[in-house]
Amino acid sequence: MRIGIIGSGALGLYYGALLQRSGQDLHFLLRRDYHAIQKDGLKINSPNGNFHLPKISGYQNAAEIGPVDLVIVGLKTISNHHLINLVKPLLGANTAILTLQNGLGNEELLAAEFGAERILGGVAFLCSNRGEPGVVHHLGEGKIHLGEFSCNGSQRSLKLAEMFQAAGVPCQAINNLRRARWEKLVWNIPFNGVSALLVKDVTDILSHPLNKKLIRDLMIEVITGANAQSLQEPIDAENFSQELIAFTETMDHYRPSMMLDRMAGQALELEAIYAIALQKAKQAGVEMVRVEMLYSLLAIGEQNRQNIEST
Amino acid sequence: MRIGIIGSGALGLYYGALLQRSGQDLHFLLRRDYHAIQKDGLKINSPNGNFHLPKISGYQNAAEIGPVDLVIVGLKTISNHHLINLVKPLLGANTAILTLQNGLGNEELLAAEFGAERILGGVAFLCSNRGEPGVVHHLGEGKIHLGEFSCNGSQRSLKLAEMFQAAGVPCQAINNLRRARWEKLVWNIPFNGVSALLVKDVTDILSHPLNKKLIRDLMIEVITGANAQSLQEPIDAENFSQELIAFTETMDHYRPSMMLDRMAGQALELEAIYAIALQKAKQAGVEMVRVEMLYSLLAIGEQNRQNIEST
Repeated sequence: MRIGIIGSGALGLYYGALLQRSGQDLHFLLRRDYHAIQKDGLKINSPNGNFHLPKISGYQNAAEIGPVDLVIVGLKTISNHHLINLVKPLLGANTAILTLQNGLGNEELLAAEFGAERILGGVAFLCSNRGEPGVVHHLGEGKIHLGEFSCNGSQRSLKLAEMFQAAGVPCQAINNLRRARWEKLVWNIPFNGVSALLVKDVTDILSHPLNKKLIRDLMIEVITGANAQSLQEPIDAENFSQELIAFTETMDHYRPSMMLDRMAGQALELEAIYAIALQKAKQAGVEMVRVEMLYSLLAIGEQNRQNIEST
Repeated sequence: MRIGIIGSGALGLYYGALLQRSGQDLHFLLRRDYHAIQKDGLKINSPNGNFHLPKISGYQNAAEIGPVDLVIVGLKTISNHHLINLVKPLLGANTAILTLQNGLGNEELLAAEFGAERILGGVAFLCSNRGEPGVVHHLGEGKIHLGEFSCNGSQRSLKLAEMFQAAGVPCQAINNLRRARWEKLVWNIPFNGVSALLVKDVTDILSHPLNKKLIRDLMIEVITGANAQSLQEPIDAENFSQELIAFTETMDHYRPSMMLDRMAGQALELEAIYAIALQKAKQAGVEMVRVEMLYSLLAIGEQNRQNIEST
């Protein structure tokens, strides 16, 4: 399958490298790492085994890639104002688009421009970051839940899941993408925001009883917002929040991506993770007051910032 | 009048100096500034005119002061675990105690030990800080609203107000101390907390529309909590919050005391300003969810701290 990667950050490079290693025909739109990868290829350091791809088809311009069978979007949502122009040159008559971006609004943005039937979304559970140019550090996890944007299931989503599985990625086709997106927000909204705001990792946050309660209260709010979205099956607030907190307590001083972004002075993905979720909850009659407060407190740190493109 | 000052920080030293200059007989419990003040006296720098008191009756031990007519308490509330022992040696049969401390719970603490009839409280609107030992910088404001803890008004409170006025302090005897305490919290809870959390001054906070809304939402919560306390006259949420925000917008990059404390690595007055207010609101059936969230976020920064005595 001919695949284009738009947004070759840690996530795009990691999954792209695994797919290429498994025999797929990969084409990467590169920015920061272009020259290093053209010269030395791409290295993945991973607890599953390090590997090196000496030859990568890298491009500085999306038009040079041309039509593909599948576009995988790994762009940071802070650069979504470029998304349409970056994806457009890769589309043929039957090209599918799979966005693995964070938060809400990405499928909608792509669907409005390219048609809902092209669009799939995936929720990626991946801990990775970029090292020096041409090097990606995979720290752990990596599973993907992917599904159709405009229907509950499809042969196409099953085939894509198989393709990822064949590349060594634990991947599952799901029938309710919106629920999966909201489920991920139940973790992302509290932990990304509180860790970025306080510059404390998840273990430090959960070690303080008041903050553990705050995390739980935030989760319950997000679940209430989610369950107002007419999901096929509601999320069980009590059990799901307990599960997520218990799971997070097993993480050893994990630093969520938004905390790392803040520490690095990078722009935060506030629109995709907070603003759209707040808007959708409000439209459904749910005021997520603590989520709104967290969003406001995070936003003031961003006010003097220009959007930074991160590909 | 023989007056003892317990808690000779910027506030205690400032008001004590004005009272001594006006002819009252002042006795200061000193800690950090003891030696400097014994040697060189006390200097007040103020837009109202600098002045110097060469001779101060300073003590390192409350017992040496002995009984007074009036104890003025300026102790930071983080040191309230010492309060009873510090005040006790100053009490004669008719000694009154006036606490000018921040937040809630101080009158109650004193009343439980020494009897409610002795206790007055004052809300001080003072911008001041300590310079080198023996020097206090008065930056602006300074008015006091004082009242009885256990009744609505008294000759005693009128006389104390006159005494402060004679010393150059704008001072008013009020009939509803509890309402005044809560009114001050309507400012202190949002601005102290948000400025300390974000390390942003009040002008920077109000310049961001989301944070201005958050400040207002916090104020409305505190007013709702206040009005559940059976005040004689409820606080008008809409008008009072608008007034306070408009007033704060005239302050030029003012840094609330809690922001300065956090920047200096000092302990924050979370118990008096947040915990007790949350508890009293909850007892009256009001959940101040944003206030609780702010308290939780501030508390995690304090968790590894020992209480620091600040006198």
